Amino acid sequence: MSDNNLALVNDYNRIYKLERIPMRIVRFIDPEGNVCLGAEQGENTAQILEGDLLSNPHDLVKTGKTAEITRQLAPLIPPNIYCIGRNYAEHAKEGGADIPTTPVIFMKPTTAVTNPNSPVIIPACSSKNGEVDFEAELAVIIGKGGRNIAEEDALDHVFGYTVANDISARKHQKHTGGGQWIRGKSFDTFCPLGPAIVTADEVSDPQDLPISLTLNDQTMQFDNTKNMIFSVAFLISFISRDTTLLPGTTILTGTPSGVGFARKPPVWLQAGDKMAVTVGSVGTLVNPVESA
Amino acid sequence: MSDNNLALVNDYNRIYKLERIPMRIVRFIDPEGNVCLGAEQGENTAQILEGDLLSNPHDLVKTGKTAEITRQLAPLIPPNIYCIGRNYAEHAKEGGADIPTTPVIFMKPTTAVTNPNSPVIIPACSSKNGEVDFEAELAVIIGKGGRNIAEEDALDHVFGYTVANDISARKHQKHTGGGQWIRGKSFDTFCPLGPAIVTADEVSDPQDLPISLTLNDQTMQFDNTKNMIFSVAFLISFISRDTTLLPGTTILTGTPSGVGFARKPPVWLQAGDKMAVTVGSVGTLVNPVESA
Repeated sequence: MSDNNLALVNDYNRIYKLERIPMRIVRFIDPEGNVCLGAEQGENTAQILEGDLLSNPHDLVKTGKTAEITRQLAPLIPPNIYCIGRNYAEHAKEGGADIPTTPVIFMKPTTAVTNPNSPVIIPACSSKNGEVDFEAELAVIIGKGGRNIAEEDALDHVFGYTVANDISARKHQKHTGGGQWIRGKSFDTFCPLGPAIVTADEVSDPQDLPISLTLNDQTMQFDNTKNMIFSVAFLISFISRDTTLLPGTTILTGTPSGVGFARKPPVWLQAGDKMAVTVGSVGTLVNPVESA
Repeated sequence: MSDNNLALVNDYNRIYKLERIPMRIVRFIDPEGNVCLGAEQGENTAQILEGDLLSNPHDLVKTGKTAEITRQLAPLIPPNIYCIGRNYAEHAKEGGADIPTTPVIFMKPTTAVTNPNSPVIIPACSSKNGEVDFEAELAVIIGKGGRNIAEEDALDHVFGYTVANDISARKHQKHTGGGQWIRGKSFDTFCPLGPAIVTADEVSDPQDLPISLTLNDQTMQFDNTKNMIFSVAFLISFISRDTTLLPGTTILTGTPSGVGFARKPPVWLQAGDKMAVTVGSVGTLVNPVESA
């Protein structure tokens, strides 16, 4: 790179850093019933943000007005949700699968998104003997859209991170639909997201975050994002090959070992259970379980 | 059903039929560069529609104003795109697969949607020796959203139909991504849609539509939607089990036999090719092919 270009890039980075204010962004219902976007400011209070998270997330502006959080919502409804399968070697092994040589990509419909503290519903069409499982994941929210993003530029396209739980109906995932996973991954409430989008500035290294899931306060999954087979930067670069990533696109980056189906005996979600997924400083996403 | 309820239902149906005006709905750029929604009215002209296709498609209102169609767009960007694999027995057989006993469901991202007459781009990351294939499909657009929709009510939830081409990079579909098809189905331009949404009133029976695809004016696929394994009504009912279908949700209902990969020798899309998919009176969707 020429000295001139390097100076421009450094200048861009400096301005970019100055303008990006670290925030924990929440979407919520205020006491009047309005859906609001805000920056967390103490417990149950947020400073209202103006702007559109999905069209230009970096242009969100703090208004100075605060509001009480009556009920938290998933921090966004993404335009598209990509998910990565078998991205931790120990999880691939516990499922009896080979370590993938390229990312295993599937999707969830936007209708699967559900809120922090809202129940995950065991579908009526699921096996009565249990089949619904949990998967703790780090979710990446794209800020600056792009296509054919180089791996070395990929983290500049991250707006922030949140916590996800890739709920999976294993019978539907594995034994119906000709091997395609979508069916078992797409029921309503199967994509809890939240509680906040932590802007990228607050996460010094997305590949060094402890990730865990407790079921009824018992630890079921515990690992670190450094054990991902494909890093966040690689995944963004890979998925964006010949494929546009819009602002707000959300990538669930895979789950570590310890899921229910691989346990002996298997552990299936039951009405009355409580799940809590924690990803380092990104946050803790809690969801109870109910039956349809 | 009580006589009272029956009367209400008949009344509803009468009003519903009266208020639903058969239309061919197009989205397009007008001479001033505005994106418009309109009802086709002669060649290259449309009557502008007011209302929101995605929030309440049945409330679209004709304004009386007409506009020239400078460039046609895909008639909508759906909130979610579901696709059905192996839904014609002859196509399942030509691919060496069993006849499915439940629908094989996968998805495409909304970014894959492209316009009538716009080029399908062979991705830079695709095999240089060819791997990109065509799939003629009937696409169903949901009007009235719902969940757990009964099969006998399902067609009442259809806003209309359009034509789709489920472009597929077979190497990516079959040999990368651990058997998940999303990767090979999701590149930009891999979901041509259009040219118009034909409202459900204009289609007397979605299970009796000839469907065909020509490549450079040579017929490659020719069948009838009566040969679907799972009907449109069944698919809507099945996908909606425990899963909300939003207005605008689009379902690609599968392709008949004759696709490129199953031919001997295989036929792969090449820059300079021209595809035309025709589904009965629903329309003809034309797309040229270019290389990235």
